[in-house]
Amino acid sequence: MIDLRSDTVTRPSDAMRAAARDAPVGDDVYREDPSVEKLQERAADVLGTDAALFVPSGTMGNQVAARTHTERGQELLCERESHIYKWELAGLAQHAGVQPRTIDGGDRGVVTPEQVRAGHVAADGHRPGTGLLALENTHNSKGGTAIAPEAIAAAADAAHDLGVPVHLDGARLFNAAVAHDRPAADFVAPVDSVMCCLSKGLGAPVGSILAGETEFVEDARRVRKLMGGGMRQAGIVAAPGIEALDNRKRLAEDHRRAERLAAGLDDIEGLSVPDPETNIVIVETDRPAAAVLDDCEAEGVLGVPFDEHVIRFCTHWDVDDADVEEAVAAVERAV
Amino acid sequence: MIDLRSDTVTRPSDAMRAAARDAPVGDDVYREDPSVEKLQERAADVLGTDAALFVPSGTMGNQVAARTHTERGQELLCERESHIYKWELAGLAQHAGVQPRTIDGGDRGVVTPEQVRAGHVAADGHRPGTGLLALENTHNSKGGTAIAPEAIAAAADAAHDLGVPVHLDGARLFNAAVAHDRPAADFVAPVDSVMCCLSKGLGAPVGSILAGETEFVEDARRVRKLMGGGMRQAGIVAAPGIEALDNRKRLAEDHRRAERLAAGLDDIEGLSVPDPETNIVIVETDRPAAAVLDDCEAEGVLGVPFDEHVIRFCTHWDVDDADVEEAVAAVERAV
Amino acid sequence: MIDLRSDTVTRPSDAMRAAARDAPVGDDVYREDPSVEKLQERAADVLGTDAALFVPSGTMGNQVAARTHTERGQELLCERESHIYKWELAGLAQHAGVQPRTIDGGDRGVVTPEQVRAGHVAADGHRPGTGLLALENTHNSKGGTAIAPEAIAAAADAAHDLGVPVHLDGARLFNAAVAHDRPAADFVAPVDSVMCCLSKGLGAPVGSILAGETEFVEDARRVRKLMGGGMRQAGIVAAPGIEALDNRKRLAEDHRRAERLAAGLDDIEGLSVPDPETNIVIVETDRPAAAVLDDCEAEGVLGVPFDEHVIRFCTHWDVDDADVEEAVAAVERAV
Amino acid sequence: MIDLRSDTVTRPSDAMRAAARDAPVGDDVYREDPSVEKLQERAADVLGTDAALFVPSGTMGNQVAARTHTERGQELLCERESHIYKWELAGLAQHAGVQPRTIDGGDRGVVTPEQVRAGHVAADGHRPGTGLLALENTHNSKGGTAIAPEAIAAAADAAHDLGVPVHLDGARLFNAAVAHDRPAADFVAPVDSVMCCLSKGLGAPVGSILAGETEFVEDARRVRKLMGGGMRQAGIVAAPGIEALDNRKRLAEDHRRAERLAAGLDDIEGLSVPDPETNIVIVETDRPAAAVLDDCEAEGVLGVPFDEHVIRFCTHWDVDDADVEEAVAAVERAV
Repeated sequence: MIDLRSDTVTRPSDAMRAAARDAPVGDDVYREDPSVEKLQERAADVLGTDAALFVPSGTMGNQVAARTHTERGQELLCERESHIYKWELAGLAQHAGVQPRTIDGGDRGVVTPEQVRAGHVAADGHRPGTGLLALENTHNSKGGTAIAPEAIAAAADAAHDLGVPVHLDGARLFNAAVAHDRPAADFVAPVDSVMCCLSKGLGAPVGSILAGETEFVEDARRVRKLMGGGMRQAGIVAAPGIEALDNRKRLAEDHRRAERLAAGLDDIEGLSVPDPETNIVIVETDRPAAAVLDDCEAEGVLGVPFDEHVIRFCTHWDVDDADVEEAVAAVERAV
Repeated sequence: MIDLRSDTVTRPSDAMRAAARDAPVGDDVYREDPSVEKLQERAADVLGTDAALFVPSGTMGNQVAARTHTERGQELLCERESHIYKWELAGLAQHAGVQPRTIDGGDRGVVTPEQVRAGHVAADGHRPGTGLLALENTHNSKGGTAIAPEAIAAAADAAHDLGVPVHLDGARLFNAAVAHDRPAADFVAPVDSVMCCLSKGLGAPVGSILAGETEFVEDARRVRKLMGGGMRQAGIVAAPGIEALDNRKRLAEDHRRAERLAAGLDDIEGLSVPDPETNIVIVETDRPAAAVLDDCEAEGVLGVPFDEHVIRFCTHWDVDDADVEEAVAAVERAV
Repeated sequence: MIDLRSDTVTRPSDAMRAAARDAPVGDDVYREDPSVEKLQERAADVLGTDAALFVPSGTMGNQVAARTHTERGQELLCERESHIYKWELAGLAQHAGVQPRTIDGGDRGVVTPEQVRAGHVAADGHRPGTGLLALENTHNSKGGTAIAPEAIAAAADAAHDLGVPVHLDGARLFNAAVAHDRPAADFVAPVDSVMCCLSKGLGAPVGSILAGETEFVEDARRVRKLMGGGMRQAGIVAAPGIEALDNRKRLAEDHRRAERLAAGLDDIEGLSVPDPETNIVIVETDRPAAAVLDDCEAEGVLGVPFDEHVIRFCTHWDVDDADVEEAVAAVERAV
Repeated sequence: MIDLRSDTVTRPSDAMRAAARDAPVGDDVYREDPSVEKLQERAADVLGTDAALFVPSGTMGNQVAARTHTERGQELLCERESHIYKWELAGLAQHAGVQPRTIDGGDRGVVTPEQVRAGHVAADGHRPGTGLLALENTHNSKGGTAIAPEAIAAAADAAHDLGVPVHLDGARLFNAAVAHDRPAADFVAPVDSVMCCLSKGLGAPVGSILAGETEFVEDARRVRKLMGGGMRQAGIVAAPGIEALDNRKRLAEDHRRAERLAAGLDDIEGLSVPDPETNIVIVETDRPAAAVLDDCEAEGVLGVPFDEHVIRFCTHWDVDDADVEEAVAAVERAV
């Protein structure tokens, strides 16, 4: 079975497994786990931030950020299809007590400075006031679009001019960095906090990073504990995360394979496939997506439905060139 | 000064004041206030519901409804400019723990069945699920548009088909009823709960009604207490509310005056004024709204800014024909 | 029927009813209701605070105070039987996101400085930190005990030394003032905010006052709106409230009658009645309280059960000397 | 340095490290991680429940349980010094919107059926109603007291009779089981859910188990996702957890060493040490605890302050007989 459902399904490499076995560890709630400390320092270095925090999931990273930046009863501005709004079980209302206000980011999910200014709400006796702008890059629900650092900066600057901090959901930030051939830190410099996942294309088994200024990270550490994200000898999973950070360049292969996959699928009658920007391939189907996926599974390929006539395939670490060719052939049989 | 800021500024009539003085009262927390009971029965009768509850404000009525219908962690579907979402201090997140999902209702704020179906979210492991559809009629931020019962029913039926209950913010429901020359109950029949204000065009000093099925109202009574809306000898303000319910027909005069006001203002260079549907007049201004309003105030007319180049004027009980003519003249001088 | 269930059942006097009819009013959400403004100024004057806010109920006053003083995720220190903790539907968790920590105030509900210090929690990575001390005077559930200003000050000073603000639930503050023959302001001076009810022994139909420093009251005004407590021509109920504030001395009669009631009931076989300090009479019953209350009702007297073998009777405005004598006789027949 | 601060500092064994390296893994959010599945089955088997869920921390397990069992606006009954109330950053108010009501469990932290009945609150128009009883065993803050299954059952039965479900915080449940020489399932049978930690005395690097009936665990899985506890190839830490479950018998050694440590320390002038029931040794100090701990650290022994004159020492996996003897000698030098 060729599993193209998500880059979250990647299995850790032998080096990562060895790192897990050999990791020096301690109690991270006491901040004594050397592997966690090392991962956090390394991540802060790569992201160009003062500090970083290891969290068990991307969802926790985003939710901790939202609660740390805001006061209850504010608004949070985000793209309409963003993960923090759409796929996190309405956590914004529950953890932070904030109300999302959504921006339509168009086909690529890019939020413009004009939209930030238009969506901004000043606090008064009736209106909550905007407490945070949350951006996403690459934008998952828009097909892994890789937004340029300059576009991130433009939206972030508009928010900052209004006194609003900015969080970047960079679950797949390194895909954006590779796509633009720019350091990850370029995308992070304009924002106040960033979350990035170690467990997607980078291949680590577990965990994400939440990074920003030292004071923010200290506050976030306490919110992490509140949410149950304080782990003990977390070095066992942090050590493979260090390995994962070294896999950033490798994402270029996923992108190349996604391009080949898209081209191959686009040739198939009944499918329409826009050019992918990173490792996510969006396929529009004439037949209902669910039916097509059933047939694909019978032929040995897995994907996920994104809408009634839309399928998402994802390339990743565990998919090689031969898998891509076989996937194209299998989908053709299925369709 | 001619006060066209809002129909909330109406002052109670002599009959209402006399009703306040003479009201038989008791402790309404013990459900022993005969004036409150009478108002609730009368309101339920007018609205065609099983039961009704007196609440100190429209905001409380809406927020109690949202919390009573939903479970924490759901989504609430509403129009993007609706009061419950825009003007209630992010109460939905705080009181009910729900996440709003907004629909663009266009110029008139009408939510279509297609939009309800498109906005509906089925609960799963990542998505919250839709817990309530909230409609608004007349739609305040869209200029007091009066949506027909059939349009309310179409949206509500679409929600019901998906197992989602429907609340109607009818702060100005009776304006809609008068505009369509239909009984208020026709607008309420398709929904599960309705809030309507006694203190706007109807002229009562204080309070709103939340109405629906008996079990809903019983649950809402407890949430009202939680929110601090349990009052004691509330008959003093409920009795004028009974009077107010008899003023429904009078709203036609406000609508006629709004039409005249709009026509007069539209003739003024630098203003553009669409035809009003009820008692709210939306004025687009060439100059910034704030500056225009300052000049209007200097000439003896008050309004409120709705956007950078938009002003809202409202006709009501305390504005007569002569006031309207004088207002047009004053605004002309100001512009 | 002699209704001794609560002083909340008092009906407004003719003077209050006349005040309701004649009140100059405006839209209090715009802060233009002269009667509300006058009540708030008068209340601030009586309580010795900078500012005051009219709220529809004592519960709202307490909950608004708790939310305004604290940040989500703190602890609130209060007496175990205090109203804010016991009778307000767990609002502290829901509105403010705070966790109560309770102190056992003994028979009279007095919280000592030692208890404040022992109950105080310093914020760290695991513990929430104490955000507010809430006191109550008179203490309802302890039988209307009237705590001296010095005892309030001692507890409040201990909290202030720890950087913790103090709210006083003074639903029946004026009963405490009368019992100690001290100005209400003496009880308020040591604390940061106070709530007092106009609708209990003072006889107003509706409403309470939340008072404190100007900045606190401004913040509280916004939270009041969030909770649905922003009312329009609220002068209709504020004006009787002004009258009510002049009834403070009258509470001495309620206390005298409570003493007489207690003495009379204590002579009855099967009842044991401690001396009341204010207008609340606690009766311990040999038989189950519910059964005794049923029999009392059959004889024309109403009270409320406080525990399995405890009844509460309350004297108030609508109970005169003859009612007290008749009540004693009726209870004797019932027991 | 002999680290007696907590059994959370234990480092994973070679077998656990090997298990981490060799674990078959998959994406646990898709429920495809065989090691997580195996751990959950094994844990359910050991605990005698239908199902079990792997969570990243004990705090998350407790908080997920509280939110899953209750509705917002209820009360949660627990012992005054219980971890869920005292050490989890007021999560009960924030995640579940519930208000704790505390029971004084005396020296050993045992909650009696009488206390459950007395603390139970029936829901009405003013009172929240009790939604959950949370017990703890062993009781950490009371010195690791091991409560017998019969005592757990008595309290739980009292709750069940009142229609209230019961959660058991069994962070150190297996210590209780070993102390009583009874299967863990005996302690779990009377309750509706149990949380137990793999990362304390059992020595696993990360994680806890939340177990109960299948439907409860399904609901809890969704709340885990909401709280950010959905991890991907979690088998890397679940596999060592399977090893850890086999270490239950080994806890007897920790208990034996705690006894020896307590006896040794109790002989030291200036210290008073009650007999430990499990692996937690509570030391009352004449001098302030903080000062004693500083001196102990200088002599090579670490503990934690529990109160102004109370120190907690904990024996665990990484402490052998020689360490205990050396710890006694070092503390003697320090004191």
